[in-house]
Amino acid sequence: MWRSPVSRLLRIGVISSIAHRTPARGYGPWEQVASTLTEGLVALGHEVTLFATGDSVTTARLHAEAPHGYEEDRSIDAKAYEALHIAAAFEQAAEFDVMSNQFDFLPLSYSRLVTTPVVTTIHGFSSERILPVYRAYDDVAHYVAISDADRHPDLTYAATIHHGIQTDAFTFRPEAGEYLLFLGRIHPDKGTHLAIEVARRAGLPLVIAGIVHDHAYFKQMVEPYLGEPDVSYVGAVEPIERDRLLGGALALLHLIGFAEPFGLSVVESLATGTPVITFPLGSMPELVRHGTTGFLVKDVDDAVAAVGRVSLLRRLDCRDDVAARFTAARMVAAYAELFTRIADGGPSSVSRSSSRGTSTKANRTAPSLTP
Amino acid sequence: MWRSPVSRLLRIGVISSIAHRTPARGYGPWEQVASTLTEGLVALGHEVTLFATGDSVTTARLHAEAPHGYEEDRSIDAKAYEALHIAAAFEQAAEFDVMSNQFDFLPLSYSRLVTTPVVTTIHGFSSERILPVYRAYDDVAHYVAISDADRHPDLTYAATIHHGIQTDAFTFRPEAGEYLLFLGRIHPDKGTHLAIEVARRAGLPLVIAGIVHDHAYFKQMVEPYLGEPDVSYVGAVEPIERDRLLGGALALLHLIGFAEPFGLSVVESLATGTPVITFPLGSMPELVRHGTTGFLVKDVDDAVAAVGRVSLLRRLDCRDDVAARFTAARMVAAYAELFTRIADGGPSSVSRSSSRGTSTKANRTAPSLTP
Repeated sequence: MWRSPVSRLLRIGVISSIAHRTPARGYGPWEQVASTLTEGLVALGHEVTLFATGDSVTTARLHAEAPHGYEEDRSIDAKAYEALHIAAAFEQAAEFDVMSNQFDFLPLSYSRLVTTPVVTTIHGFSSERILPVYRAYDDVAHYVAISDADRHPDLTYAATIHHGIQTDAFTFRPEAGEYLLFLGRIHPDKGTHLAIEVARRAGLPLVIAGIVHDHAYFKQMVEPYLGEPDVSYVGAVEPIERDRLLGGALALLHLIGFAEPFGLSVVESLATGTPVITFPLGSMPELVRHGTTGFLVKDVDDAVAAVGRVSLLRRLDCRDDVAARFTAARMVAAYAELFTRIADGGPSSVSRSSSRGTSTKANRTAPSLTP
Repeated sequence: MWRSPVSRLLRIGVISSIAHRTPARGYGPWEQVASTLTEGLVALGHEVTLFATGDSVTTARLHAEAPHGYEEDRSIDAKAYEALHIAAAFEQAAEFDVMSNQFDFLPLSYSRLVTTPVVTTIHGFSSERILPVYRAYDDVAHYVAISDADRHPDLTYAATIHHGIQTDAFTFRPEAGEYLLFLGRIHPDKGTHLAIEVARRAGLPLVIAGIVHDHAYFKQMVEPYLGEPDVSYVGAVEPIERDRLLGGALALLHLIGFAEPFGLSVVESLATGTPVITFPLGSMPELVRHGTTGFLVKDVDDAVAAVGRVSLLRRLDCRDDVAARFTAARMVAAYAELFTRIADGGPSSVSRSSSRGTSTKANRTAPSLTP
């Protein structure tokens, strides 16, 4: 069993996103991960301040500038409140042994102005055009990749730490269901149209759940099939319905069209015992064990064939793999170990020079914390 | 004559906008003002570092993160390069006696992390939704209004300093021209459609110059009139053409529909001797002396009548008023005096507490520097 290596308690500031509440009510994976981490660190006894929206729910001390997420309350100017939110965290930096940035690149630009080390979890690169910021702070930043696949060759990482989930929020279902499931944003990247094609060719019902991210795509590629009795769209789903939908499925169709940095829904599906059929893109080969917890397929034909073989997989193997590799406890322990290491010595040996690209990084060869 | 009160030389960091080059090639009033200030401070002997795009032209030391303005080079991510740009300035804060922020609200959010005082020129409020940031930093910020009209009642100002222009870049023309001029962004706020209406009713030719900011508006409200022999659109104009167009006009029609914080084109027009017909909105009553350098009109009827009376004004009075009130030298001297005052004592007596809304401001009763 995994034992926490934490030898002392830390004062930690966690900077969440303010697009949504922390944890998000519905869609909001960044806020979900920030919440899981925060609550786990508090449970370990650390003194945590969570910087998030005012309506966030946490056992940590909450500091809020924005009353609500800017995606949920259009009276809130995203740029203005991001500035207030990040600044508030850095203005309190002296009160923390370490800060955990779960908020993209903007906090990096404040990080040289304080002496507290900042550990930045890179939840993905929205565009190559934001890389200049990550490169500019590579010498002082402590980057955490959320999968080995998402590591950018130009950057230096302190660790890869896979996301973890609260497994008790997902009910293991030993019997396979009779429908296929698409769960995620309705967007070409997520392959909703491919899930429809695979389900129709496999002759099985498909349930589609998630927010509509790309309305034109939904209208053109999804809506025309909703008249068929075997294709249904149930909209965005809250946690209890999400658990029920995942657990009741034969397989999750995760036929993404991009190198996804991590897939929370993939791990959640496995936690209910439901195998995952996906492409070997991005983090997928790290999350799905081909032939054991799902299938990494090469195209739609291959996906249709995989649907036929999915009942040969043992659902308990899926659950067991999550228990071994993707629990919140494991994620929190990995972060706690990293934070302790960095608070204890990392930062003092890192040059905080402001002349970019010239200083060297202390822990360039730090080992990955992921087994 | 105005004499500079500067008693010692300062090390000053000027943070310009990176939307455009500094100074802008065409449209770009913020960059224009930052340039005028920077070059003037260098001429007074101050040691100035200008934070601006890499293609900027200056006699100061130039520090650039973005090679070009993000409005001019779409490969540049505005948010990423704004972060790099502002951070670079604050990472060098210890090298400056004072910093001049000509860049909107974002730099405020870094200002409590350094001890160097930051003087923020508010070039206007793009939206009420950005006010929370200005309010949050009111206790430590030194705000400069660009007109008394633009002072927000919630904020504390160190001074009002009107923009100044290089008067020798504008040629005084003693004889009135025979056309009316619209010069500015083509946008409903700027009243291009009202200028057309007034010119047609006055029976005079209208020349329209400026970038098209609102394309639907241009198509619907401007383009239909361009077939008429007396209405012409000449596009955006560079400095020499701008001087020629302004000086050759009978009057500038500046029939704005919003409380404009300042109007550089108004002052430039006056510098060539061309009177201005405008509404008494925003800064206009501060810029135009009704009955002497132009007319503050109450509606379109009144504007048409004013066109009939404009030849009664003395063009030399327009030029003289600019020489007295709107020169670059006067603006630069006012900033230099303010910077010296703040560098010498202002900041040390200001509490830099991070608990918002509780500290008091040292120079809350500082007098306006504008006569």
